[in-house]
Amino acid sequence: MADITAKDIQALRKETGAGMMDAKRALTESDGDVERAKDLLREKGIAKVDKRSGREQGQGAVGVYMHVQADRPVIGVLIGLASETDFVAKSDEFIQTANDIAMHAAAARPSWVSRDEVPPEAVAKEKELIAAEARNEGKPDEIIEKIVDGRINSFYKENVLVDQVFVRSDRFEGTVGELVQEVAIKMGENISITKMARVEIGEG
Amino acid sequence: MADITAKDIQALRKETGAGMMDAKRALTESDGDVERAKDLLREKGIAKVDKRSGREQGQGAVGVYMHVQADRPVIGVLIGLASETDFVAKSDEFIQTANDIAMHAAAARPSWVSRDEVPPEAVAKEKELIAAEARNEGKPDEIIEKIVDGRINSFYKENVLVDQVFVRSDRFEGTVGELVQEVAIKMGENISITKMARVEIGEG
Repeated sequence: MADITAKDIQALRKETGAGMMDAKRALTESDGDVERAKDLLREKGIAKVDKRSGREQGQGAVGVYMHVQADRPVIGVLIGLASETDFVAKSDEFIQTANDIAMHAAAARPSWVSRDEVPPEAVAKEKELIAAEARNEGKPDEIIEKIVDGRINSFYKENVLVDQVFVRSDRFEGTVGELVQEVAIKMGENISITKMARVEIGEG
Repeated sequence: MADITAKDIQALRKETGAGMMDAKRALTESDGDVERAKDLLREKGIAKVDKRSGREQGQGAVGVYMHVQADRPVIGVLIGLASETDFVAKSDEFIQTANDIAMHAAAARPSWVSRDEVPPEAVAKEKELIAAEARNEGKPDEIIEKIVDGRINSFYKENVLVDQVFVRSDRFEGTVGELVQEVAIKMGENISITKMARVEIGEG
């Protein structure tokens, strides 16, 4: 059996967005071959991986951030952060991470937690806009599809929580998804964001 | 012009669930005739009344309640409570009311804020169940509809936030909607619950 390093696991997770256990499992299955492990994760589908991880995680904590303006809270954000054990869920770092992510979401206003939550219509609409834009730029038809696939990532980075760059770069440099995975490595178990809720005064 | 008393306004609001300003307006229009005022409110439709009140209210605060179990928050609830002025929104009593309602919702688990949020399918399904139940009890067909109309209120009282009896009866005796209206009278402006959000660990 090949030697599976923590570095390989982290690299695979950064590229695929998979949970730690899934990445480790894929690397074990692929006998340490990172490219093959990536294919294995793709075959299962990241969304499925995420969902299975979700089912495995029965514990967790709810993070909260209240934004106060003119002497009263005007924005509230809740974040459900799931862990596998009670022990991790009640640790200060875990609860702090849930609160930090809620703070991030209050500022960065993501619409969805993960890519598989984005309604297909929203993706289709965005892709149409990108394609029209590329055509306006005079790009040839045969490469439009590739351009769309590339630029759709910007849409995810703007609107999907785990794809957003974490706002407090003094605390962590990377995306929210990477922050979660960093904590998962440190704690040694699967951790994932299960839910986000926002209430704001004067919205809508 | 008839003398419109605060008592009349409160009685009308308790019966109809209308906002203070709407109740007062209806009583003014009906020249103090409570029954006629009730009809006026019904003609407009309570739902419409609520929505208009919502639009008039640009200020407010977000209430929050975090339920802690085994050393970490496992349920979080946010409540958007709207007022007309900044002055009311930042008062201690207003913010406390928003927090109290969030605490209530954490315990009583309503599915919707108001009746007009309940999906028509959910009401239809519930009415079918009640009708089937009444038929099983041997009630004659001609009164089934009346029975359904009566019993559907229990469904609302269980699942709709403003129709639920406030859990902290030591603080306020009545429904959450009545609590909100009590505060509205005291503060002298329209107040309403605009939004509710809940995140819970281990749900779903």
